[in-house]
Amino acid sequence: MKITLCQINPIVGAIQKNKAQIIEWYQRAIDEGADLIVFPELVLIGYPPQDLLLRDQFIQDTADALDDIANRSTIPLVLGAPLKTDEGLYNCSFICGNGQTLGYYKKILLPTYDVFDEDRYFKNGTEPAVFDIDVDGKSTKIGLQICEDLWDKDYACNLAQEMKQRGADLIINISASPFRTGRLKDRAELIQSKVADTSIPFIYCNLVGAQDELIFDGQSLVYDGQNNLIAQGDAFEERMLTVDLAEAQPIELFKAKREEKMYNALVLGIRDYFSKTGHKEAVLGLSGGIDSSLTACIAVDALGVESVHGVSMPSKYSSNHSKDDARTLAENLGIDYRVIPIESTANTFDDALFQSFMDTDSGVAEENIQARIRGTLLMALSNKFNWLVLSTGNKTELAMGYCTLYGDMNGGLAVISDLSKTDVYALSRWVNEKAGFDRIPVNSIEKPPSAELRPDQVDPFDYDVVSPLVSALIEDEKSPSELIDEGFDAELVKDISRRIRINEYKRRQAAPGLRVTSKAFGMGRRVPIVNQFDELK
Amino acid sequence: MKITLCQINPIVGAIQKNKAQIIEWYQRAIDEGADLIVFPELVLIGYPPQDLLLRDQFIQDTADALDDIANRSTIPLVLGAPLKTDEGLYNCSFICGNGQTLGYYKKILLPTYDVFDEDRYFKNGTEPAVFDIDVDGKSTKIGLQICEDLWDKDYACNLAQEMKQRGADLIINISASPFRTGRLKDRAELIQSKVADTSIPFIYCNLVGAQDELIFDGQSLVYDGQNNLIAQGDAFEERMLTVDLAEAQPIELFKAKREEKMYNALVLGIRDYFSKTGHKEAVLGLSGGIDSSLTACIAVDALGVESVHGVSMPSKYSSNHSKDDARTLAENLGIDYRVIPIESTANTFDDALFQSFMDTDSGVAEENIQARIRGTLLMALSNKFNWLVLSTGNKTELAMGYCTLYGDMNGGLAVISDLSKTDVYALSRWVNEKAGFDRIPVNSIEKPPSAELRPDQVDPFDYDVVSPLVSALIEDEKSPSELIDEGFDAELVKDISRRIRINEYKRRQAAPGLRVTSKAFGMGRRVPIVNQFDELK
Repeated sequence: MKITLCQINPIVGAIQKNKAQIIEWYQRAIDEGADLIVFPELVLIGYPPQDLLLRDQFIQDTADALDDIANRSTIPLVLGAPLKTDEGLYNCSFICGNGQTLGYYKKILLPTYDVFDEDRYFKNGTEPAVFDIDVDGKSTKIGLQICEDLWDKDYACNLAQEMKQRGADLIINISASPFRTGRLKDRAELIQSKVADTSIPFIYCNLVGAQDELIFDGQSLVYDGQNNLIAQGDAFEERMLTVDLAEAQPIELFKAKREEKMYNALVLGIRDYFSKTGHKEAVLGLSGGIDSSLTACIAVDALGVESVHGVSMPSKYSSNHSKDDARTLAENLGIDYRVIPIESTANTFDDALFQSFMDTDSGVAEENIQARIRGTLLMALSNKFNWLVLSTGNKTELAMGYCTLYGDMNGGLAVISDLSKTDVYALSRWVNEKAGFDRIPVNSIEKPPSAELRPDQVDPFDYDVVSPLVSALIEDEKSPSELIDEGFDAELVKDISRRIRINEYKRRQAAPGLRVTSKAFGMGRRVPIVNQFDELK
Repeated sequence: MKITLCQINPIVGAIQKNKAQIIEWYQRAIDEGADLIVFPELVLIGYPPQDLLLRDQFIQDTADALDDIANRSTIPLVLGAPLKTDEGLYNCSFICGNGQTLGYYKKILLPTYDVFDEDRYFKNGTEPAVFDIDVDGKSTKIGLQICEDLWDKDYACNLAQEMKQRGADLIINISASPFRTGRLKDRAELIQSKVADTSIPFIYCNLVGAQDELIFDGQSLVYDGQNNLIAQGDAFEERMLTVDLAEAQPIELFKAKREEKMYNALVLGIRDYFSKTGHKEAVLGLSGGIDSSLTACIAVDALGVESVHGVSMPSKYSSNHSKDDARTLAENLGIDYRVIPIESTANTFDDALFQSFMDTDSGVAEENIQARIRGTLLMALSNKFNWLVLSTGNKTELAMGYCTLYGDMNGGLAVISDLSKTDVYALSRWVNEKAGFDRIPVNSIEKPPSAELRPDQVDPFDYDVVSPLVSALIEDEKSPSELIDEGFDAELVKDISRRIRINEYKRRQAAPGLRVTSKAFGMGRRVPIVNQFDELK
């Protein structure tokens, strides 16, 4: 039996385009001899469709498109789409063939945590489903499940075992599982535990593509009944993956380096955000620092060298090496590069505020004006030429509030907002290693980080200490007292914890940021702004 | 039996402060002769606590505070708090007395729609609860329910009837039900339907106070077994409301005017946002237009005249009447007022961008620079003096994207972002009517709206047509085709619908806005940015 997994990249809301792509890939798979063809979860509408699911027209258009696919079907295909019944809306896996819908399964386990809100939209199914389907002339009992159903140990049930008991010959899990570091290993281990339990093949077909903050990585997997991996889809790319269950040979699970995976995830994140919103070119400020340098590399690899514009906006506090490093980076990348000094504009702000600021000391207000002039210049270029501004702040800064709202936080997309400062260094070194030369000037990597908003300023953190502590608090969800018990400096932990809390208001207005870790700032972390919970009272 | 409803205003996360307030009000109620004392839903931790509920320390601190309250209790009190068991976390109503917890009820119906996410945090209870409690020396069967449990018709069950069948003598519903226009009527009608069904008294105790985007209005209600309203708490204020079930006389439901309710809601929204985040003073730009004028009035009524700072930031396109109207408003209100012209700053931006913008026509880019200079000036004052910037955009503009990101959208709080342009006019007229003079200059109300970003510019919309259409699409959730079927101009409906869709990216970075209608932009409306669903394809 030849099964073809179509790991495709649909667009949220583009029902007609998605349908056309599904039909095209389905036909190609048939042409290549497939006996059974599988598409990911909610592939017809994209994931997550959010409140579009509340629109009657959306549900109706989806139902019509699904009917059309079913009507055109010959050999069996499995795909994800919503279904509205008198009882409510369900997240379903449909199996179609012979010009009709042969069966459908209603997702039982609905994730409602982190970035997921399925209980907001869907009722849960209650019955595992196994369908007896004629595949390649042979009656085959196919168990259908959807994404979270695989993670059933968190819900104290065993859906794979129940399918086996209902006679399933194989299990097909269609997923929309977003990338995060370590996720491939989690999935592979879970699937292996299911095969160990059932001794039937497990077909896992995952979505690919970016949608707002989320990046789906594909990496579909097929295990045979002896628990051998026999097929793996590429990461971050559309792929048609055909496997003959009877003849396939075991392969090794391919795991790329952490840096490579994160980098490629972000490349896809930019590429899809641009292509799916109709943008072609990006602009970003180049400070000569490591954050903007790394962001520029990712942008060039996503959009092409012709489509990225770098702007250096030196002030009177900018060092020569910063200006040099920015220029060198732009030259290394070969991108359009311009210099727009901000000093005279900063002076007119000082003049305008002279009376209001009389008898006050220069401080954060004056520093932020510079950041906001730069943000305004980038937005002016954006408005004039329809370039989308990429913001370049990292997760450690965002956590600490070491960033200027309406200044360097400006942007349509925050590219590295889920990379800790430690990860920014790691990915930058990886970029240079991969390029075989200092694509990112080594000086940008090695010099002490500085915002250069006042004379001799350097960032007021030891990132080697602060960056892992922020990750421990956010990604590992450790409590401040746990960290103190582990031996970290109590005052520092307290200070970081407080900064994370009081800077929620800034992050609430941040550009959408691409998620690559287990817990990003953004849709998956919902913390009140008005929040007087002090964990270390 | 004298029942006292304590309609109080807790702070999210401030467990110790909330506990102290509960104990203080409890003692006062006892001093005034109460036999049974009732506090709102989740009063111990504030609502909605969002992801704080995922922190072990938060749950532990809450449990400790609850124990303390139970230990100190003498006569019975009912209050809301979470409870963690081996099965999961529950949203509970506790009844305490005689130094202990006498019983608790696990909320059955968990709202997970619009602004609510309870399925993200809580497991649902399954059993209605009626407790036999000694009240004023008499055994009384008290049925406990929580907020959404009252709205059970949406879930095809009848919890009040089930309580009656279990022998309940009265029902106590503790709520955290946010304000929106028409909500009081909904609640009163629902409660009356329950009393008609059960013929037992119904005590409805609602939270008061603002939390981020939400404004809880209080307006607690008590109905006797004959379905007479016998007590009503004030709107938008903390109140101790005591009612003697045996002796109370029927009263009329007090319904304030729509304009008054919305206005008072926004006053509370500002006041609580400031007091709960530790801010004292506000700054806003005064353009002489109606939006900033209304916002300034609300701010003065919330914070006091000494705490509001108005800034006029005229450009070369600003008309004399605008400058006059801004000044007149500031004088009417008696607030600090300053004028900071932006022309020379705008010129330095033009100079800085001269080379990049050569051979292009002046347009949106140049207009937005002016808005962003103003936004930067307000933020500079904010950073310097710790004044919080209020943004002044209305809902119709936000829908249409007729606002400048990082410009006039700047602010810590968007005061009137859930008022349509129609509502802005209505509330402004109401302000003047109530003041007995033109507190808002009549010229600001009557002149054609203009952003004054280029010569002779007026807003490119007929707000009399566009504002109700936006409300129909957002609040009434009508589809564009329904509106066209109703006879509205197809091209206009299509244009509005498209603008709402493509401007999601701006709103995603907007300041948190105070919600006063059935559907606000913000946490209750979750629409993807990457969204190719065109309802009128």
